[in-house]
Amino acid sequence: MSKLCGTLREAMERAGLENGQTISFHHHLRNGDFVLNMVLEEAAAMGLRDLTVCASSVFDCHRPLIGHIQRGVVTGLETSYLSSAVGRAVSQGVLDRPVVFRTHGSRPADILSGKTHIDVAFLAAPASDCEGNCSGKYGPSACGSLGYAFADAQKADTVVVITDCLQDYPLTDASIGEELVDLVVKVDAIGDPAGIVSGTTRMPRDPVALRIAELAAQAIDAAGLIKDGFSFQTGAGGASLAAAEHVRRRMLERKVRGSFALGGITGYMVDMLQAGCFQAIQDVQCFDLKAVQSLREDPRHREITAAQYASPASKSTAASHLDAVVLGAAQIDLDFNVNVHTDSDGCIIGGSGGHTDVAEEVGLTVVAAPLSRARMSIVVDKVLTVSTPGSSIDLLVTQYGIAANPGRPELRPALQKAGLPVKDIRELRELAESINGPAAPCQPPRERVAARVLGRRGEEQDLIYTV
Amino acid sequence: MSKLCGTLREAMERAGLENGQTISFHHHLRNGDFVLNMVLEEAAAMGLRDLTVCASSVFDCHRPLIGHIQRGVVTGLETSYLSSAVGRAVSQGVLDRPVVFRTHGSRPADILSGKTHIDVAFLAAPASDCEGNCSGKYGPSACGSLGYAFADAQKADTVVVITDCLQDYPLTDASIGEELVDLVVKVDAIGDPAGIVSGTTRMPRDPVALRIAELAAQAIDAAGLIKDGFSFQTGAGGASLAAAEHVRRRMLERKVRGSFALGGITGYMVDMLQAGCFQAIQDVQCFDLKAVQSLREDPRHREITAAQYASPASKSTAASHLDAVVLGAAQIDLDFNVNVHTDSDGCIIGGSGGHTDVAEEVGLTVVAAPLSRARMSIVVDKVLTVSTPGSSIDLLVTQYGIAANPGRPELRPALQKAGLPVKDIRELRELAESINGPAAPCQPPRERVAARVLGRRGEEQDLIYTV
Repeated sequence: MSKLCGTLREAMERAGLENGQTISFHHHLRNGDFVLNMVLEEAAAMGLRDLTVCASSVFDCHRPLIGHIQRGVVTGLETSYLSSAVGRAVSQGVLDRPVVFRTHGSRPADILSGKTHIDVAFLAAPASDCEGNCSGKYGPSACGSLGYAFADAQKADTVVVITDCLQDYPLTDASIGEELVDLVVKVDAIGDPAGIVSGTTRMPRDPVALRIAELAAQAIDAAGLIKDGFSFQTGAGGASLAAAEHVRRRMLERKVRGSFALGGITGYMVDMLQAGCFQAIQDVQCFDLKAVQSLREDPRHREITAAQYASPASKSTAASHLDAVVLGAAQIDLDFNVNVHTDSDGCIIGGSGGHTDVAEEVGLTVVAAPLSRARMSIVVDKVLTVSTPGSSIDLLVTQYGIAANPGRPELRPALQKAGLPVKDIRELRELAESINGPAAPCQPPRERVAARVLGRRGEEQDLIYTV
Repeated sequence: MSKLCGTLREAMERAGLENGQTISFHHHLRNGDFVLNMVLEEAAAMGLRDLTVCASSVFDCHRPLIGHIQRGVVTGLETSYLSSAVGRAVSQGVLDRPVVFRTHGSRPADILSGKTHIDVAFLAAPASDCEGNCSGKYGPSACGSLGYAFADAQKADTVVVITDCLQDYPLTDASIGEELVDLVVKVDAIGDPAGIVSGTTRMPRDPVALRIAELAAQAIDAAGLIKDGFSFQTGAGGASLAAAEHVRRRMLERKVRGSFALGGITGYMVDMLQAGCFQAIQDVQCFDLKAVQSLREDPRHREITAAQYASPASKSTAASHLDAVVLGAAQIDLDFNVNVHTDSDGCIIGGSGGHTDVAEEVGLTVVAAPLSRARMSIVVDKVLTVSTPGSSIDLLVTQYGIAANPGRPELRPALQKAGLPVKDIRELRELAESINGPAAPCQPPRERVAARVLGRRGEEQDLIYTV
């Protein structure tokens, strides 16, 4: 019997999808993804109920998920990132069962070990052949790396490939092989190419972000890392990208031959590869089309799985080889704990993604953030949610100065020697308060748990309450 | 702690190798492999005993294995192919426990399901970085595809990469990733490049082989398969290669645009790709250096795992998409059962490799063999060992004519219509006897089992007795 189904409905019926099962999705189409919505819409039409959605990330484009939760089609949600549209609804208590947050590394660890069981994985595939040999590199919805989809494909009971670009068998440059795929269905479009390039990957223009970026690059340099063999990751946030730009200038000026760039990859990292700053890119996720093109064409640009990226169960990972990372924060507290899950009101606005994984593994973790956002201090006494434990954070870089974690005593003198504005994190806390006024104490009533934040090894690290 | 070990001994000690454990090897270095021997020599020096060797194939270069068996270092052997040097010793009873023969497809099926447990996998890697990201495509011992090594890497408790070409981290074009690798050791040489190109892959010159090859190609054509979309596999034997040459001529003459070539890949298949006969190659094993080069350089030439090639546990395989295969036989009987395990004396000289897998999956299985070898008939009343059941064999092509399996009644009239010399297999049997004289009845005394031949799904298909 052919794997190819005429309609998504047929695929879901042949997959034997039942009430109460767990269905999974990857997020490589980012805010342009159509697949999660189309599957849930069909599930609702089929009268299915009590599904658990296990998605590597949930974006604002997945807003229809709220309605499916309200109608009982979906009653469970496990993810690594939940942007504010669905996040706010969850914080307001739309789900009875708490959301389960894992990191980008512990999600594949739990899937591969069998701790997380997936009944049906729906893989958005920008290109596939009729047997399910599929790739993210080709087709009108090309998203590049399929890094977060591998574990789902390996372990789900049933794997359904959903594509809008059916290619001749065999698709030789396939990332996921037919041996793992049960069913294939072609739809009109799996995503909106414009949404695949998220707005978060644009270079900032405001002087505060640029100042932070410059300081972050100077701090990495002061730590002695910008030398031959250097490896580097940035998040997709503006300050991170601007920091990469400063790192690039320093590398080129001194003809530093770095090793590799890691992570969610942007065109800026591709430029650095092409300029000789790095010899390789290890790419678990493409953030823009230049990264997609590079992954397709440049053999130095390697697609890696989420397990290869940062799973704590892997025998080693790309993250464990990394020298420095620049990450963001919604809040950071006096113990350097970072919150990337909730805003200052306690509403869910994100999740750790790979933040927690890489911060733990890397040589130097730099959190780059403005001291305030919308007149709210970033530096606080205690973060509302511990996303990444302070023990994994080495430096906080703000536009007013840099604080080093006392757990890394060698950093402060190194920064001072380089003439950088070193502050105690308490000074930054006080400065923030003097600018913004005393922080209104925010602590949602601890009545109902909206989400459980699991640490890298599955331990319950924090709880997020409904607001 | 670094994965990199200074010596093989250190790697084996750190791997915690113990008496009674199972160690695995792949055979991509074919008759040039040094790795199996060096590991066993070190195991003997360490005083280890009772090891089980789980090797995808064993070649004549592994003759030292006999001594390790005699001294009790190795007491178990599981493989898919055992060439005559070690095969003869096994047939003479050197091992107390019977050898376990699996097919190339059922070996990864049993490893991935956990039925076969590997304590330590030793992966010969022509190129690796310090974390074990490794490839068969580069380095002085390049062997191309690592198809048979993937399951071992995925499931062994401990994975040791042995390389003679250590590359900078990260090796971006890696086939097996660091997340699976525990230890890496660099040695002077993992193999003899000359031995990687086996003598079996040379085009034959004798007129009998060429006649058989021509008839095989004509038979495939008569079955209506040589048309656009055609997919094809040959074994590495001379007659198979010559058949490929005839298929190629027919494809080029009629401008047939085939789909893919599969299997152990030779330069002849690469030529056909380059000539436009095929759009892709799916390569589980390279038989010569031209295949290695093509795999490295041509994106249409895809490395596949043994599970992707032909595992009966896979959701689909390349083999299940295949139109025609030309395979060899040591014996074939009146029920079309094929023996590729033992010679006419009952001594072990091979094993099914992928023969049994592909024969079951493919559209048309052609066995091409001379009617006699060394004055012994190939066609016999009953094969000494059932390697591939007759239900999987469609045609026997000899220099004297072609016999079609009555289970495929449409084939005989198609061959006749094409003017081909169709015979009943009994006629061929009689002809062989009239040429060679009546076959000396050979049946080793059924006293001691030398090997168990498992079918594709793990069932005991036949037993091989000591001679």
